[in-house]
Amino acid sequence: MRLTRRRLSSASLLAAALLLTGLATAPRAPAAEADELAAIRKEVERQHDAAIRRLQAWIALPSIAAENLNVREGAEHMARLAREAGFQHVEIVETGGKPGVFARLDAGAPKTVGLYFMYDVKQFDPAEWSSPPLEARIVDRPGLGKVMIGRGAVNQKGPQSALLAALHAIRAAGRKPPVNLVLVAEGEEEIGSPHITRLVHRPEVLEALRGTIGVFMPSAMQDADGVATVSLGAKGVVELELVASGEKWGRGPTKDVHSSLRAMVDSPAWHLVKALDTLVADDGNTITIEGYPKPRPISAEEKAMVAAASARRSEARAKQQLGVQRWIDDLPWREANERLVSQPTVNIQGLVGGYTGPGGKTVLPHRAAAKLDLRLVPGMTREAAVAALREHLRKRGFGDIEINVTGGYDPTGTAADSALIRAQLDVLRKRGLDPVLWPRTAGSYPGFVFTDPPLRLPSGHFGLGHGGGAHAPDEYYVIESANPAVAGYDEAVMSFVEYLHALAK
Amino acid sequence: MRLTRRRLSSASLLAAALLLTGLATAPRAPAAEADELAAIRKEVERQHDAAIRRLQAWIALPSIAAENLNVREGAEHMARLAREAGFQHVEIVETGGKPGVFARLDAGAPKTVGLYFMYDVKQFDPAEWSSPPLEARIVDRPGLGKVMIGRGAVNQKGPQSALLAALHAIRAAGRKPPVNLVLVAEGEEEIGSPHITRLVHRPEVLEALRGTIGVFMPSAMQDADGVATVSLGAKGVVELELVASGEKWGRGPTKDVHSSLRAMVDSPAWHLVKALDTLVADDGNTITIEGYPKPRPISAEEKAMVAAASARRSEARAKQQLGVQRWIDDLPWREANERLVSQPTVNIQGLVGGYTGPGGKTVLPHRAAAKLDLRLVPGMTREAAVAALREHLRKRGFGDIEINVTGGYDPTGTAADSALIRAQLDVLRKRGLDPVLWPRTAGSYPGFVFTDPPLRLPSGHFGLGHGGGAHAPDEYYVIESANPAVAGYDEAVMSFVEYLHALAK
Repeated sequence: MRLTRRRLSSASLLAAALLLTGLATAPRAPAAEADELAAIRKEVERQHDAAIRRLQAWIALPSIAAENLNVREGAEHMARLAREAGFQHVEIVETGGKPGVFARLDAGAPKTVGLYFMYDVKQFDPAEWSSPPLEARIVDRPGLGKVMIGRGAVNQKGPQSALLAALHAIRAAGRKPPVNLVLVAEGEEEIGSPHITRLVHRPEVLEALRGTIGVFMPSAMQDADGVATVSLGAKGVVELELVASGEKWGRGPTKDVHSSLRAMVDSPAWHLVKALDTLVADDGNTITIEGYPKPRPISAEEKAMVAAASARRSEARAKQQLGVQRWIDDLPWREANERLVSQPTVNIQGLVGGYTGPGGKTVLPHRAAAKLDLRLVPGMTREAAVAALREHLRKRGFGDIEINVTGGYDPTGTAADSALIRAQLDVLRKRGLDPVLWPRTAGSYPGFVFTDPPLRLPSGHFGLGHGGGAHAPDEYYVIESANPAVAGYDEAVMSFVEYLHALAK
Repeated sequence: MRLTRRRLSSASLLAAALLLTGLATAPRAPAAEADELAAIRKEVERQHDAAIRRLQAWIALPSIAAENLNVREGAEHMARLAREAGFQHVEIVETGGKPGVFARLDAGAPKTVGLYFMYDVKQFDPAEWSSPPLEARIVDRPGLGKVMIGRGAVNQKGPQSALLAALHAIRAAGRKPPVNLVLVAEGEEEIGSPHITRLVHRPEVLEALRGTIGVFMPSAMQDADGVATVSLGAKGVVELELVASGEKWGRGPTKDVHSSLRAMVDSPAWHLVKALDTLVADDGNTITIEGYPKPRPISAEEKAMVAAASARRSEARAKQQLGVQRWIDDLPWREANERLVSQPTVNIQGLVGGYTGPGGKTVLPHRAAAKLDLRLVPGMTREAAVAALREHLRKRGFGDIEINVTGGYDPTGTAADSALIRAQLDVLRKRGLDPVLWPRTAGSYPGFVFTDPPLRLPSGHFGLGHGGGAHAPDEYYVIESANPAVAGYDEAVMSFVEYLHALAK
């Protein structure tokens, strides 16, 4: 983490600011490159329908690690997509968990760029969707245009398919990609990437990645107004379950018994509630885990970035989209965003114990669980967070409560003046977009495996376009945009073509 | 409640004790009655297979109020069973909830007895059963004999079917029941009998019940060792859900959003945890709801009953059956039983919020619920308990949390010297059984509707036989007993024949 922090220095922020204001080195855009891009654009448009069908076929095959669904099939499909897009070497690699895919595309270029993909998607309940989540139908959405609705539409199959469509179009235009590519795809992103290190640290993968100038994941970086955000990192995460049970506690029953016995038998569910209660203060937000790693205070540079971004983003729209009336502590918009980027969280994703169906059922449950996710910011590691939680519970008489960590990793950060980020700003500026620079995504991705030792590479997300509803019903990705400021599918594909060219420079 | 308490006076306890020790009036058992019982027994044995098939057909049709399953069908089946058993007047009556069944059997006898039935059963998950819960298979159980496994086997279709089989056998023997019968059957017992008052207070039902000497529910009152328990009442219960939601709170989201937003958005799930935490002390057991009605202290008579019962019941067996290693506060067996009969409870039946499936899902849930049941002892009413809970939450800043009461009622009690209880003790003593007298069942049944004004009738449970697993998987009822001290099905049927005769005296 020390390295990462150093990268976020004021010098690098200054460099980014210069790029943003157009005072850095003037763009080189020879006529040859313009011709090449025009030829590729023609192919992107010609192949539009085929690319959409390719994306729809991908969405029709959901791989869900938490449910052990279509894991092998998902990896094989991912491998086939890579092969069809021109990767000469493609292999499915075992990780000890769900398999990964490792692929190389040698374009004979001087530079090599890493790609990080996920082939898995989040769980879904079709009953909650207005359009079947696996059919990836294209429907009209007022204000947005034609959007594809499906699980994985924006997280992450849509943007990843657009990157692959860029490679298809480049080849169809009789060109070669301007950079060589190394692809690492995992099938466990949605469960906290428990085996990403095993995948990336395989000798042949590590060796291939060492030769890259950085690693990026295709994404849809525009909001509904078209504002593009360049993020310089992401929080870390730990996903875990706290499980209280009669078996482990030595009190309460070892199976569900009639609730009338509650008058003489202890309750693991109440034991869990009492344990949970010690983790946050009465405000429900302030973490009270003893010895919990402390977040690094938000820096002046980060504050400046958040201030600039908050001024450009609509608080009213954010509140309306989330169904939120007020932020934590009734903070104003800018301070709420500062909290968002700089503070760790202890979130309850799910509570499950005893009878969870309709109405009641008079049982005294022998087991109750809280599914938590902990978001980590610079200054914190997954290991230290879990260790503190364990010791905290032990000290307070909750040592019997199981802490089942299912995934997670440290935070990640990349310097604003790295080649990866400079190329992003370059592409966006050429398109007349004024991007928002953002200290770190409040969500998480396992960028640490690229940014931390031994690789120490820049890592980020890139891609024009807009989507929403990740992890929620009616997840969507804009295909034909009603707003000229927001890229549709073909423009998203072109943004990848341009980004690869910018990275080649 | 005042009436009920008066009934449990030391005088009545003394009377019961006298009966138990055989010092009360000598039993009258003329030869004519012995002949009649012998003739009926012959029919019970001859009709055994038909009665078992009748029970199996009943179990095959589960009515589950919480799931709105087979409600109308269940009431119709109940009505048919009553009609076939000889009730001349049978009607399905509307209650505002699930329908009830009201029936009368006029045997031309001087006395009339009330019967309380339930035709509904608890929810079940077939995956948890070793034998299909609706097939009511008869299987060998070491130590028990041949038992029927099915949902409702003991709670309450098995014992109720045995009472009906007694009526069939009496008729087949060319006899009339020794008492007239009034039957009230409900389909909402398992959700806390929310409409039992509407059913029992219908003018024609109330009028019919006013003419009875008391009301009983068929049950299996023997434990696995054959010890029969005569209970003098039951706790009251309130079933309710506490629901925290962004909608009602005005904080947090109004739909599930990505968990990364937790750093700026409040959490209804944590709000619920904080509210729950205020309801019981750190021991998880002591109720800390401000202004909660106080239980009447356990009386010397009740203590004596519990002491006698504890001496006869095996603590080791109880612990083994429940999978419990220690009782609350490490109480010894007798004190644990005192706690069981005398203390109210605030039990968590279920916790459900956000993502409850396998693994994790990074959402910030907009809603979380705790399903509670509150058991009430004398000195407490449902109304006062709910009112105190509401005010307690309001005062502590949890006034937004919904309290959805789905059912419940006050405690109930019946005097040991009532005709209903004296007849029970009489039947058991004649069979050489030495029953355990018990202050009140820790579970609940809506006896209040019979014991409280306006009816003020004795009410209880009766029936030889043994079963287990009520509300749990592999619920069973002994059909052919391996233990001579435990009644099998035919003996259970005969116990009802004998009880009706004893009540007729």
